[in-house]
Amino acid sequence: MKKLYNEDNLTLLTDFYELTMANGFFQNGYKDQIVYFDMFFRTIPDGGGMAIMAGVEQMIEYLKALSFTPEDIEYLRSKKLFSEEFLAYLRDFRFSCDVWAVPEGTPIFPHEPVVTVRGPVVQAQFIETMILLSINHQSLIATKANRIVRASQGRAVMEFGSRRAQGYDGAVYGARAAYIGGCCGTACTLADREFGIPALGTMAHSWVQLFDSELDAFRAYAREYPDSCTLLVDTYSTLKSGVPNAIRVFNEEILPRGFRPKGIRIDSGDITYLSKKARKMLDEAGFPDCQITASNSLDEHIIRDMIAQGACVDSFGVGERLITASSDPVFGGVYKLAAVEKDGRIVPRIKVSENVSKITNPCFKKLWRFYDRETNKAVGDVMTLHDEVIDDSQPYTLFDPDHIWKKKTISNYRAVPLQQPLFQNGVCVYQSPSIEDIRSYCLKQIDTLWDEVLRFENPHRYYVDLSQALWDEKERLLAEYSL
Amino acid sequence: MKKLYNEDNLTLLTDFYELTMANGFFQNGYKDQIVYFDMFFRTIPDGGGMAIMAGVEQMIEYLKALSFTPEDIEYLRSKKLFSEEFLAYLRDFRFSCDVWAVPEGTPIFPHEPVVTVRGPVVQAQFIETMILLSINHQSLIATKANRIVRASQGRAVMEFGSRRAQGYDGAVYGARAAYIGGCCGTACTLADREFGIPALGTMAHSWVQLFDSELDAFRAYAREYPDSCTLLVDTYSTLKSGVPNAIRVFNEEILPRGFRPKGIRIDSGDITYLSKKARKMLDEAGFPDCQITASNSLDEHIIRDMIAQGACVDSFGVGERLITASSDPVFGGVYKLAAVEKDGRIVPRIKVSENVSKITNPCFKKLWRFYDRETNKAVGDVMTLHDEVIDDSQPYTLFDPDHIWKKKTISNYRAVPLQQPLFQNGVCVYQSPSIEDIRSYCLKQIDTLWDEVLRFENPHRYYVDLSQALWDEKERLLAEYSL
Repeated sequence: MKKLYNEDNLTLLTDFYELTMANGFFQNGYKDQIVYFDMFFRTIPDGGGMAIMAGVEQMIEYLKALSFTPEDIEYLRSKKLFSEEFLAYLRDFRFSCDVWAVPEGTPIFPHEPVVTVRGPVVQAQFIETMILLSINHQSLIATKANRIVRASQGRAVMEFGSRRAQGYDGAVYGARAAYIGGCCGTACTLADREFGIPALGTMAHSWVQLFDSELDAFRAYAREYPDSCTLLVDTYSTLKSGVPNAIRVFNEEILPRGFRPKGIRIDSGDITYLSKKARKMLDEAGFPDCQITASNSLDEHIIRDMIAQGACVDSFGVGERLITASSDPVFGGVYKLAAVEKDGRIVPRIKVSENVSKITNPCFKKLWRFYDRETNKAVGDVMTLHDEVIDDSQPYTLFDPDHIWKKKTISNYRAVPLQQPLFQNGVCVYQSPSIEDIRSYCLKQIDTLWDEVLRFENPHRYYVDLSQALWDEKERLLAEYSL
Repeated sequence: MKKLYNEDNLTLLTDFYELTMANGFFQNGYKDQIVYFDMFFRTIPDGGGMAIMAGVEQMIEYLKALSFTPEDIEYLRSKKLFSEEFLAYLRDFRFSCDVWAVPEGTPIFPHEPVVTVRGPVVQAQFIETMILLSINHQSLIATKANRIVRASQGRAVMEFGSRRAQGYDGAVYGARAAYIGGCCGTACTLADREFGIPALGTMAHSWVQLFDSELDAFRAYAREYPDSCTLLVDTYSTLKSGVPNAIRVFNEEILPRGFRPKGIRIDSGDITYLSKKARKMLDEAGFPDCQITASNSLDEHIIRDMIAQGACVDSFGVGERLITASSDPVFGGVYKLAAVEKDGRIVPRIKVSENVSKITNPCFKKLWRFYDRETNKAVGDVMTLHDEVIDDSQPYTLFDPDHIWKKKTISNYRAVPLQQPLFQNGVCVYQSPSIEDIRSYCLKQIDTLWDEVLRFENPHRYYVDLSQALWDEKERLLAEYSL
């Protein structure tokens, strides 16, 4: 598959302070200092009960291609801030970190380490911006898409937002993330060519306007695309002109034998009302199989309302509100130091804050998901120290890290480590799954969540707990660092 | 300047229906049909009084590079929807449209044609997606940035949002647009290397955490960067630890002779309160020139409040809420057919809608801005037919197109056509200004607007009127097309 970018050119897509800090670490003798960073997020967009991990494949591509061109080095030298030793290090740069991540398509929850990096601080610090940018963007869109797909209750959702995306790969990678979240296709042709996401589309109003009449426009389209004929019926008047003209064309003998219309699209007006009227007209004309597609600033709430009011819509084209996640357009992932190595020992680090929710979970950690063996539903997640082992033949006691008297002992469960190794000593050891496999894995994983976690209003807070050993370590550090 | 993208690869960043329609036009004998399209938008983000045009340079680059690779053709052929004649046309594609646009940095208003395209419908239709995507994205961010810059009342605003941007060029082109809107720099290193936008930054909490103490961390940074030493003071406790340690280091003799600290940064807590206390501590320690930078989910409203409450902040680092325009993250530009040529005549087209605000302005048009010669303030904009000439030595009567009894006759004005020619018969005839020139042009243009247009709450609606001839033509078409 062709890359969208010249590989070399994204190395410097990094906050400038990553470079000045890297140089500073280098100059202060920390070149080989091994550190541990976690990426995690604090709140779920739209007040939802879960988010969906996405963007891992692009993060991997960036890390694989990480290198500094002579032009990059020259640019940095011109800043007069970086030592020649550091620039030489960049010139001969070899990525040597270990990286783990939760696979794309997995439901994820606040405070979980969804990416963990172990490596020399100069490198582990430098890659912060692109790790966050890759995962934040695609997780945002995959999460939003999945909300819209769930609201649509089995009806197809098409991603139609390229023209309103925030930049070119907002469109392309947004289409990718929307597909992971459950959309059935995209308007974005490049996302089809690059990732194999089915490209879909109907016609614009300009098609109808260019011909001398709506009837001529429909006739020409049906003749050209008899196997995928969806007509846009709202250019002049949906019920007085668009639907009657569509039906007239569908019946014409100029069309190939066996022609069946694919559908009509309604893009304005009161779509719930219009779709019911149009459905009746189509059924009475002998086209009960002609589908109705709706578009026009849709989102999960409007779709839910339309379905509740009995709209006769078979598929939804969703644009700007999906491709920008407009109701909550920021996925707030952060990347924080969790530990450093000293004399071969892993020494935990914590970030204290007056804002309790901003206190970090220290230590090199492991993330587990517990599934009930009977229902296959996810019961909760637990973070442990990296070398803890959970024996799932034994009962396990979960406890709320904020309210430790809230306990629950479970048995008959499977405990599954969620992070996968991506890089070992800088070498990629992970084969990204196909986009189809990610999408179907995602849909299956959503099925392991209780409806209470999935609902839009006041969802149940999924348990993300700490092991006793990790909790003890965190408390010890809090006591030590608090001023 | 290096391009971010392989030029060839963005040709297919287009909605799939642009291709099926183009093929359909081609097959129906419309290959050489000349049409006119306008890009315009309907509402200003955040309920503001004006938006800022941006993204023209990237739109031009896309159009200049437009061509189809053998792989593109092969991909399209595999869809089994396109005629071989059409694919041959794409293989030998030569862009032949005329394109006009309002220059970057210009304040723009609803319903104005900010881009106009004249050319064969197959081409003019095809380029819809990328014109909208380029202009929508950057205009959104430039507009938001300018709001934040105006709220900051002369204090510097730095764009720090890369990690939360919606995709990679959401970060890079977002930084570009933010600079046009008045930001003084960006955290995004690539935006500096590509566009010469000053890259800025301080340090992350991880810098402080890595060292054995906050004091050691500050000391190391000040020694490494004595000329640009801004210390992050909120890792442990801003007032108990961060500011006192910063002052202690600023006074140390290990620093070069003549050392003056650049600043401190506060990234959490009640920044208004903390900044006043920190200011007092710095002043008393003999560092009145040490600046205070604030960050942490800022936007124009928070900044305005902070200043109103007397926060001692000299500059603002603004991240996610700027780079995603989070309060209103969609710029709703559309691209609509305005006219077609028939037998050498320009025949206007209109899109009627039950929603009055969705009715388009027909005809090949020209856009004028009227400036008062005395105050140099913009009085209003007028759309005319393309061949109308406004003689600004004569009085001109403006009238509201929705309430035509509202009239105003002006004299002593300059009438300036706003669109510039970008392409003539497919050849670029426009030299994009430097980013610095665009930025200073933008700031000057903002100065031509009355404060009433610029305010955030209930801004005055700037006049965008139609000439009598254009208004007459629109009314005639409305009567003709309405059902």
